[in-house]
This record gives sequence, structure tokens and C-alpha cells, in this order.
Amino acid sequence: MDQDAKKTLLRMIPYGLYILGAGSGDTATGATVNWVTQTAFAPPLVVMGVKADSGAHALLKSTGQWALSMLKSGQKDMAYAFFKSTVPEGDTLGGYPFAPAQNGCPTFPDSAGYVAGKVLQVLELGDHSIVVGEVTEATLHDAAEPLTLKEIGANYGG
Amino acid sequence: MDQDAKKTLLRMIPYGLYILGAGSGDTATGATVNWVTQTAFAPPLVVMGVKADSGAHALLKSTGQWALSMLKSGQKDMAYAFFKSTVPEGDTLGGYPFAPAQNGCPTFPDSAGYVAGKVLQVLELGDHSIVVGEVTEATLHDAAEPLTLKEIGANYGG
Repeated sequence: MDQDAKKTLLRMIPYGLYILGAGSGDTATGATVNWVTQTAFAPPLVVMGVKADSGAHALLKSTGQWALSMLKSGQKDMAYAFFKSTVPEGDTLGGYPFAPAQNGCPTFPDSAGYVAGKVLQVLELGDHSIVVGEVTEATLHDAAEPLTLKEIGANYGG
Repeated sequence: MDQDAKKTLLRMIPYGLYILGAGSGDTATGATVNWVTQTAFAPPLVVMGVKADSGAHALLKSTGQWALSMLKSGQKDMAYAFFKSTVPEGDTLGGYPFAPAQNGCPTFPDSAGYVAGKVLQVLELGDHSIVVGEVTEATLHDAAEPLTLKEIGANYGG
């Protein structure tokens, strides 16, 4: 396979940036992800690519619940805050206030809003797993243009 | 669930536009898709949301092979040409020249290039299925900015 062609072509896929919330209470964590797509209208499904050795991955599997907070254009610092492992400090995660979704997973009032729900499947097929989530709740804080990988000048893919 | 919030938030996810090629020879078809994400580096995996009652879906399942041609900025007409069902007419599909990938699936020399490979799984969980593909070939025609749903002023999601 032409590795350079693969990298160039896969990096053409545009991505937003999201904070994936997993766990709850003292175990809550947030992790920045970009490999996200909707995959069905009925039921409303999303697929997320989640690093297999991450804390969020372990919590998604054990709790069967997830939340995805959508970052807004301009929130580069917030995206970077969750590239590293985060644990709750009082009412904050990664330095940002968080609040539980109905399913307990951490969400971020500073974001545009969040969708959340049950984990239907976790396909452990590589260095990142394919997490299939059904959207059962949605809360809008502030409709906005999305933060994108392009805006922050980064690549994650290829 | 707040349906308006769900729609607004899911429509924040940015999408490119791609022609999914399936089948080969006389059965070749192309279908425009936008629900695409990479989900792993090793092995290189992509997930595509594919309409469950489409011709491409049936061919993906029966052949176990797929190709994804990446559209370039400015190729709105080409995206629209594959919103409807297409069958080969001589050397063209949907009015555009096509050529087989190594796995036989149709690809489009007018696109930026294509990635292609085997179907690892088809999760039939809704009105669109989750198709997991392993990338085993990649051919670059013309590195370019991607065509996006935003550029063509359309939404498909929510």
C-alpha cells in the first residue's frame, strides 16, 4: 500500500473536536476525541473511535454510558485540556466546570451542548475501538460553529 | 429527548463528501456518502454509515469489498450525480469515468483519490448500517481541499 497516499487521503476527512465524557462522580473523566460520525437517523446512532488503552475506554465499557460535548469555534484551549488524562477536582475536570448528563456522564456547560446515551457495542478491532452509541438525550447550551481540527492546525488521522 | 437540540448538535459534526464504490464490472455502483470517520491507525480502519436499503449496501455485503473516492472542493455536481442510483454506461458511472480498484470496486479518476479494502463488519442497527472497512490500498490522484457538506450548503444528519 502507498502509505503516503493513505495518509494524505485519510487526512482529507474533516473532523470536529469533542469531549467524550465517561464514568460518573469520582470516576468521571473527559477525553478529547475527533473520530466521530453519525451513522443512523432511526435510531439516532453515533460512532466514536476511542483509544483502546484510555481511561475513557475502560469506563465506557464498564458503565455502558457516554456523553459527547461539542466544542465551539475558539475553544482550542479546552480541546487541549482533555488530550491528557483528567480526574475531577471539585466541580471541575481538566480545569473546566462539569455537570452530569441524565446518564451520569460528565458534560461541559462551556461547550455548545451535548448528546448522550447508551453504548450499544464496542468493537475492539485496533489501537482505537469503534464505540457505537445511541443518542437518548441532548442538551443545547449555545448553538455555534464547531471547533475543527483544521482550526487548531492539527491532524489526527492518516 | 429534546429533538431540536439533538438535530442542532448532531449537525455541528463536519462532514466531507465521498463516492462509495461497490460491486464490480456490470454490477458496479457508486453512492454519495458523508457519514465517514477513521476509527483506528493500526490497522487503518474507517467506518461508513450506509443506507440500509441502498444498492451499494447490498453489494458491500455480498462482495465484502469497498472503495471510497474522496471528492475535492468544487465537485458539488459530482456529489449530486451519485445521490441517485447509478449503473455503468460504458466506461462511466453517473456520467463520470470510473476505474476498478485492485479489489474490483469502482473508483473515480476525477476525485482526489481513493482508499479501498475489505469489509470487516456490517452492523445493521438502523436505517443506515455501520460498515467497518479496513484500508488495504490507497491511490492519490490530486491532493486537494475536501468537498464538504458545508460547501454545498446541505445537511445530512441530526
